[in-house]
Amino acid sequence: MADAFDWGLLEPAGEAASAVSDDRILRAMVEVERAHLAAWSGLLGVETTSSLDSGLLDRDALLRESRRAGVPIVGLVQALREQGGTLVHQGMTSQDVMDSALMLVSRDALAASRAALVAAGRRFSTLAREHRGTPFAVRTLTQEAETTTLGTVFGGWLDVLSSTLELLDTASFPLQLGGAVGDGDAFARLSGDPDAVVGLRRRLADALGLADPGRAWHTDRSAVLAVARAALSVCAAGGRIGRDLGLLARDEVVTPLHGGGSSAMPHKSNPVDAVLLVANGLRASGPAAVLQATALSYDARPAGEWHAEWQPWRESLRLAVESAGLLAHAAEDLVVQVRRTATDPASSPRGGAAVDSAVARFERAAGEGVR
Amino acid sequence: MADAFDWGLLEPAGEAASAVSDDRILRAMVEVERAHLAAWSGLLGVETTSSLDSGLLDRDALLRESRRAGVPIVGLVQALREQGGTLVHQGMTSQDVMDSALMLVSRDALAASRAALVAAGRRFSTLAREHRGTPFAVRTLTQEAETTTLGTVFGGWLDVLSSTLELLDTASFPLQLGGAVGDGDAFARLSGDPDAVVGLRRRLADALGLADPGRAWHTDRSAVLAVARAALSVCAAGGRIGRDLGLLARDEVVTPLHGGGSSAMPHKSNPVDAVLLVANGLRASGPAAVLQATALSYDARPAGEWHAEWQPWRESLRLAVESAGLLAHAAEDLVVQVRRTATDPASSPRGGAAVDSAVARFERAAGEGVR
Amino acid sequence: MADAFDWGLLEPAGEAASAVSDDRILRAMVEVERAHLAAWSGLLGVETTSSLDSGLLDRDALLRESRRAGVPIVGLVQALREQGGTLVHQGMTSQDVMDSALMLVSRDALAASRAALVAAGRRFSTLAREHRGTPFAVRTLTQEAETTTLGTVFGGWLDVLSSTLELLDTASFPLQLGGAVGDGDAFARLSGDPDAVVGLRRRLADALGLADPGRAWHTDRSAVLAVARAALSVCAAGGRIGRDLGLLARDEVVTPLHGGGSSAMPHKSNPVDAVLLVANGLRASGPAAVLQATALSYDARPAGEWHAEWQPWRESLRLAVESAGLLAHAAEDLVVQVRRTATDPASSPRGGAAVDSAVARFERAAGEGVR
Amino acid sequence: MADAFDWGLLEPAGEAASAVSDDRILRAMVEVERAHLAAWSGLLGVETTSSLDSGLLDRDALLRESRRAGVPIVGLVQALREQGGTLVHQGMTSQDVMDSALMLVSRDALAASRAALVAAGRRFSTLAREHRGTPFAVRTLTQEAETTTLGTVFGGWLDVLSSTLELLDTASFPLQLGGAVGDGDAFARLSGDPDAVVGLRRRLADALGLADPGRAWHTDRSAVLAVARAALSVCAAGGRIGRDLGLLARDEVVTPLHGGGSSAMPHKSNPVDAVLLVANGLRASGPAAVLQATALSYDARPAGEWHAEWQPWRESLRLAVESAGLLAHAAEDLVVQVRRTATDPASSPRGGAAVDSAVARFERAAGEGVR
Repeated sequence: MADAFDWGLLEPAGEAASAVSDDRILRAMVEVERAHLAAWSGLLGVETTSSLDSGLLDRDALLRESRRAGVPIVGLVQALREQGGTLVHQGMTSQDVMDSALMLVSRDALAASRAALVAAGRRFSTLAREHRGTPFAVRTLTQEAETTTLGTVFGGWLDVLSSTLELLDTASFPLQLGGAVGDGDAFARLSGDPDAVVGLRRRLADALGLADPGRAWHTDRSAVLAVARAALSVCAAGGRIGRDLGLLARDEVVTPLHGGGSSAMPHKSNPVDAVLLVANGLRASGPAAVLQATALSYDARPAGEWHAEWQPWRESLRLAVESAGLLAHAAEDLVVQVRRTATDPASSPRGGAAVDSAVARFERAAGEGVR
Repeated sequence: MADAFDWGLLEPAGEAASAVSDDRILRAMVEVERAHLAAWSGLLGVETTSSLDSGLLDRDALLRESRRAGVPIVGLVQALREQGGTLVHQGMTSQDVMDSALMLVSRDALAASRAALVAAGRRFSTLAREHRGTPFAVRTLTQEAETTTLGTVFGGWLDVLSSTLELLDTASFPLQLGGAVGDGDAFARLSGDPDAVVGLRRRLADALGLADPGRAWHTDRSAVLAVARAALSVCAAGGRIGRDLGLLARDEVVTPLHGGGSSAMPHKSNPVDAVLLVANGLRASGPAAVLQATALSYDARPAGEWHAEWQPWRESLRLAVESAGLLAHAAEDLVVQVRRTATDPASSPRGGAAVDSAVARFERAAGEGVR
Repeated sequence: MADAFDWGLLEPAGEAASAVSDDRILRAMVEVERAHLAAWSGLLGVETTSSLDSGLLDRDALLRESRRAGVPIVGLVQALREQGGTLVHQGMTSQDVMDSALMLVSRDALAASRAALVAAGRRFSTLAREHRGTPFAVRTLTQEAETTTLGTVFGGWLDVLSSTLELLDTASFPLQLGGAVGDGDAFARLSGDPDAVVGLRRRLADALGLADPGRAWHTDRSAVLAVARAALSVCAAGGRIGRDLGLLARDEVVTPLHGGGSSAMPHKSNPVDAVLLVANGLRASGPAAVLQATALSYDARPAGEWHAEWQPWRESLRLAVESAGLLAHAAEDLVVQVRRTATDPASSPRGGAAVDSAVARFERAAGEGVR
Repeated sequence: MADAFDWGLLEPAGEAASAVSDDRILRAMVEVERAHLAAWSGLLGVETTSSLDSGLLDRDALLRESRRAGVPIVGLVQALREQGGTLVHQGMTSQDVMDSALMLVSRDALAASRAALVAAGRRFSTLAREHRGTPFAVRTLTQEAETTTLGTVFGGWLDVLSSTLELLDTASFPLQLGGAVGDGDAFARLSGDPDAVVGLRRRLADALGLADPGRAWHTDRSAVLAVARAALSVCAAGGRIGRDLGLLARDEVVTPLHGGGSSAMPHKSNPVDAVLLVANGLRASGPAAVLQATALSYDARPAGEWHAEWQPWRESLRLAVESAGLLAHAAEDLVVQVRRTATDPASSPRGGAAVDSAVARFERAAGEGVR
């Protein structure tokens, strides 16, 4: 491609982009085809030695075929059959491969996000305990409201992280497998075993590390909504803490150790992580709106709604991975500028207990996720 | 109000609106204040005989005060203190009442939605079993794809209903209680018991039938996102089935028994339920987009994000209650026009099994929800 | 209606709601039917003395019929024919009445918004000139950047108001008239004049004060998008200034003269207008998302997309009227807390000129709109 | 970049992506810096011979700096100063370059979209005239409504194209130039000419072919909203026609000459253009929602709202260029399957006139745009 598509110019936090890049997704597609080839030839009792290699694929040719068919899988299958023969993809439909591949990428992207959120939370826990008794006048509706402790501010950040971790831990990543119209008939016809799709689904799910949903979900987009919403909650958590980071930097309560410069004012120390966290938090509205509407599927494959889903689904993951990474970096880089004082327990009878409880909840949420 | 706000002119499915109307929400606010008054005076050891009555409130006066304070609770508290004295609302903040009241309304609205989805599913189960073997050429990307059974179409509707029921059953409706800046200090100061807020929260949650979250969540909007997303999934499920209902009516596969007329063509029989289901499914993108952005809270109460949440939160519930009701009505009113044929198991080796499995899953999902 | 729908409980800035209330829209519908009846009977050479009175309509009956037909016009026509006979609505379709009525309401709501924006701008002009030389350290990315003048801040507000006024002045409000499928055939058939719809459209447009588009636009929603986007730009302008008002209140640069109280902290002076302006600015994303998707019309009337449009269209107008009113109030109520100093032109060679130019542009934009 | 970001795998219509690719935007940024260098050194009376070459830039280094500063311009300026010396970027701020570059790309992308829409419209005009009298039973709410002509269907497509062309022709692409905080002070200080920014803005606008807005618009995002909305209207027009193309293919009224294949059913002829047009139409809701919220700017540069704008702004353009290209291709590839009959003018007294009028309007709209 003489004129590459995007390489990150408009995505300053895109260092994590490889987690959800086109290359990564293409590898996941080939991984699905590879698992299918192994399981399907096993089920047919045919020996297959060929391996499918995403490195051999001609991306320009894929794009040409993708424009023709409206989906990249048709061209991919043609290319992979040259490597692996006619059993490749047999009985499957494009949506089986696309949805399963995006679930693989989702699983890994959310796991990476989770780890980064936990890292951020560990640091906020330390800060919350450290400033358990540091008096701090919090604001409501921009105005100073009442004095509590700075620890409760950090505790509030822990709370939203804990809620997000709990949500991430409910996420499920189901395999998609149904064939042309979802009922797996081709597998039955070709193998002579009416229940072939059931066993095949179990084998593929096991091989890929996805959940076996016991059915095709071509037109039930609940699983996509659930995964994307979990990702978008990471962005919301990041944006919520990012807003505070920015405002506390404005009020000179915290500052980034390594602030960003400016092209016009090199002396400035900008809270770059905070800015990008807010930006991602705001951008999350886009995929939220689109995926809500594209969930209105119909027929056995709708005329646009499914195609419209791919980019916002990936975008949700990209924003989540970025936001989690930004949070971890911001936490590490955070310098508290207000002085920690001797605790005056009378000034906030509840502040300390709220901190302890937030830290404990976070520990539970962080720990439960260890898998 | 000489010139009422909205009374349903633009909301044809609004018959269910009373579940989430302003009157209903006002009653829920008073319910929260009443539970607080009982629990708080109990905790202080003060006898209180006064009851708070939403029927006595002057709605015009409430609106005037709401414009002044930016929130309806300030005027409400003034009015309720005339009924119940100074202990009313003591130690709470506006957000405690607003969030808790909306959670009460959410709980009831989602329960009503659930019941209607189950009713729709029962009917679709019957149809799925009935047409377990009726050959049917399903479409992908508008074109006829392969022949499966009509039962699998209805089974596909069951699938999205089951997924939605499972999501609804994970919903949690937490009480909000934190006082001015979330730490419950006022309760401690006024009662002399540093842990007053803990006990009070438990009592209020019990009295109101809400969950006790063990903390204030003023700036962690995860619970709001979760509730709204569950509601919006009801709309997506309704829209997904509504699209099919419309297209199957177009293709003369199903028809509504009582179609709607037209102002220009009274002879027409329009699939009104299908149309409104699709409309609600599309409208759901609005609250999805807004609530994603308003989750970016900050300080102890943000300068707009919380206020922006009230209407889209309620809108999510309204659309859900409407869509669930429309689905139940559409299911009841559905006439299948294709002839049921003697089952030819060979034509779809898997169609029958897929139907059985969808029906069984629905039964589990529907049954588990009995509470 | 025993249990009214909404009367403004969750809409603190809703005092302006009557501009777009259901009652107002119902009156507009009747206005359209009345103009049609006059023009149509004139064209047929039939004398008609009956007047149509929205005050006589039974709203509960309208709602019942609306649920049945999916659109409120069918029941409305039945009721109006009892008043005005069979010529009422003859040749029209529901969409003709609904779209035209919403255009009438749009025209008036945007005119009211415009007037309030001009009032706000007049006050900001005065402030900008007054603080033409008041040194002020503006912030970028939360941090103090460089010193300019406070006048340029107010000038920046004028700029966004001027842009919004210019956009409002491009708005066009076309009549909808096409009959059942858009070609006006019924008018031709009934009158014997093949061009009847052309003349009728001109007469109706004149009588109602709408533009004559020379065609039906049932499935071309460009005009709706344009009107709604103009309204949503009012919300964006309000939110942009509201954010500044809140942050300048935080930094104690400006303060509202009449700040709002709090249910927990009655001593506080909250920038209520700023908070509600931001809230409306954020809420504007909802209708923006929905109307973008519902513009995907099809057939001669789509199965949901048009129905989904009514509420977000009205919501855009409501938010705009509210935001413009909030801006006018906020401008009037604004107290600048930083001291005006003797102008030091050297400190900002361009600040003064920028203010003059912003004021002059605003005067042009405000003046051009006088109609 | 070992692991490229995106190269189009999930974007089947992305062949047009180079119009808005990162490479294209980078070239536009360098173009802005080059024009500034020429104009600024001219204004200072300094001779400058150096040319700035985007081909010499190290993209990995740019990304590293972008992560540090939160914006790609800081690193770009460093690299360009190595080529062109210290006058490069002098007096400007990052936002001047970013906004101006995106306006350049917008101008070209919308011009390309316009040309493709005109091409599509020419073909639809021919079809409309050809089927001026072909009887056709159009549908409302999925059901057959009344018989009109097939020409009016194509005429309806022309209408939405004409509206979109008219909107595109109002688009304005202003230069951004204001320096650190928008008042152009640095240019005044460095040149000794208090009005330097005024002249510089004129020269840059002329050199780049952008409009001279006579001011900086850093925090007035009206121009961005206008450009993006014009782009998103292209997507809405494409989606509206795409829906019809899909449904008419379903009903076997039209068919694509070169339909797309399927990985499971190679015999199928899918209306790929229609599917992707609908997909893009639905995706357009995402940028619409985000850009509405990010218009809430504040300070002299907000902490996230501006950064959040870049990708949805570009996305609007990408979707528009794609949709316009898809429309042109779909129009070219369209085969009408219903038989053209001898015109029976009595069957539709108005259908013919409506076609003529739609064609004439399109000719005006298409012609006016010739620039």
